[in-house]
Amino acid sequence: MQVGKLVEQWRRARMKVGLVPTMGALHQGHLSLVSLALGEADRVIVSIFVNPSQFGRGEDLSSYPSNFDEDLKKLDEAGVHCVFFPSVDEIYPEGFSTSIHVSGLTDTLCGKYRPEHFDGVATVCSILMSIVRPDIAVFGRKDAQQLAVIRRMVDDLRLGVEIHAGDIIREPDGLAMSSRNSYLDPDERRQAPVIHSGLSRAAVLVSKGERDTERICGAVREAIAEASLATLQYLELVDPDSMKPVSKLTTPALLAVAVYFGHTRLIDNVILKP
Amino acid sequence: MQVGKLVEQWRRARMKVGLVPTMGALHQGHLSLVSLALGEADRVIVSIFVNPSQFGRGEDLSSYPSNFDEDLKKLDEAGVHCVFFPSVDEIYPEGFSTSIHVSGLTDTLCGKYRPEHFDGVATVCSILMSIVRPDIAVFGRKDAQQLAVIRRMVDDLRLGVEIHAGDIIREPDGLAMSSRNSYLDPDERRQAPVIHSGLSRAAVLVSKGERDTERICGAVREAIAEASLATLQYLELVDPDSMKPVSKLTTPALLAVAVYFGHTRLIDNVILKP
Repeated sequence: MQVGKLVEQWRRARMKVGLVPTMGALHQGHLSLVSLALGEADRVIVSIFVNPSQFGRGEDLSSYPSNFDEDLKKLDEAGVHCVFFPSVDEIYPEGFSTSIHVSGLTDTLCGKYRPEHFDGVATVCSILMSIVRPDIAVFGRKDAQQLAVIRRMVDDLRLGVEIHAGDIIREPDGLAMSSRNSYLDPDERRQAPVIHSGLSRAAVLVSKGERDTERICGAVREAIAEASLATLQYLELVDPDSMKPVSKLTTPALLAVAVYFGHTRLIDNVILKP
Repeated sequence: MQVGKLVEQWRRARMKVGLVPTMGALHQGHLSLVSLALGEADRVIVSIFVNPSQFGRGEDLSSYPSNFDEDLKKLDEAGVHCVFFPSVDEIYPEGFSTSIHVSGLTDTLCGKYRPEHFDGVATVCSILMSIVRPDIAVFGRKDAQQLAVIRRMVDDLRLGVEIHAGDIIREPDGLAMSSRNSYLDPDERRQAPVIHSGLSRAAVLVSKGERDTERICGAVREAIAEASLATLQYLELVDPDSMKPVSKLTTPALLAVAVYFGHTRLIDNVILKP
């Protein structure tokens, strides 16, 4: 049965429908979003779609991890009601020509280094939401800028979907869960928790009264520099809604970071509250 | 009552809902679209919204004709069930940042001379359709490129709205009806039918066997040059779906033209069939 038809039946039976869009290679982070959705909705659909248009040239589209059978097993065990795994041709049929751009929000952080990434994300998420027509959709806070872009787009285009956010789930040593962690070699994996410990150092500084962006970021940069295999791509303190840089911490702000370990790019963030 | 709620009620009563998006200053062209919608749907909503984002710098946003009371009277007489006239702030609330771009289709004709026009059109039409959630929406063939852009966007973004097209309605002397005809001074108005007679000359040539784009367009250019007040902006023979130029008429093609009379820019078109 078409997923749209299925949702229509559920809706007619007055059931609330939740969507969790993923690119597969599921980990505990995804499953926590699923469990959030199951708590909020009567029926939950998880989409698995590795969206080519959100990868730039030279990025890891061709090597992106995939483990479809494992994913299905995990989702079944989690109690998901439907898994939607469209093909690329189904989402982007021949002649497809439309893209959605969210301006401003996408100028900083990842948007600066992955110029077409968020157009790809916004476009595919709008398509998935229009095919599925859920009442709610759940995204993770690890992709904080993505979350802000999706909220803005859903509001602006009146998609009528309530956006919920799930917290970052971490490995015991603090590394934020990510499908891309599987790219790390043992040495890189050992050093990767430095990202989280750097961000935590910022939180400690703030709890002690530090409010100056430069000094906060300086401490994180120092911490990350201690890892010999880490290369910082960006570290920015921004407003969590507008994604605009803030120079002083006066209201809660998002401290977001992207770090390369070899070819593997990892992101993480923390909300700092003055 | 909110228009979305009203449509929900209608839909629950199993009525088919049609939307006719307009910028007001209604003429017989618009009313023919309304009558087409009334023939196809049980309930018809006409939106009146002069969309700032589809006007470029130096274009006629500030002087765009408006006659709201007259419009309401005409729509009432036509038997329309609801008129939706949102304010600019209602469509574009503070912080609005999203735009929709349809590539390829927008490279030729008006798209070449009004670079952001179709982003504005696509974005506002998607918003209007998402607010109203009609089953069908009706657009005029005079704006042939707009029609192609809307069809593409609605398909690509799965808006679930069936797009219907109404034929061009003309004054007795052949001038295509347009709200902008009111800008013409008497001399310009007298010469303006040259646009249609030029296009008709092309149709006659084709009926006599002419298939060469250059010769077809040459005849139209000559015809329009006979009007001393006319300045041709573009004249192109394009594929009616892709809007790509065609050099020989082998399948039905769209001959589209934009002509200035003073500051007034008029467009018209004809489908040529070999």
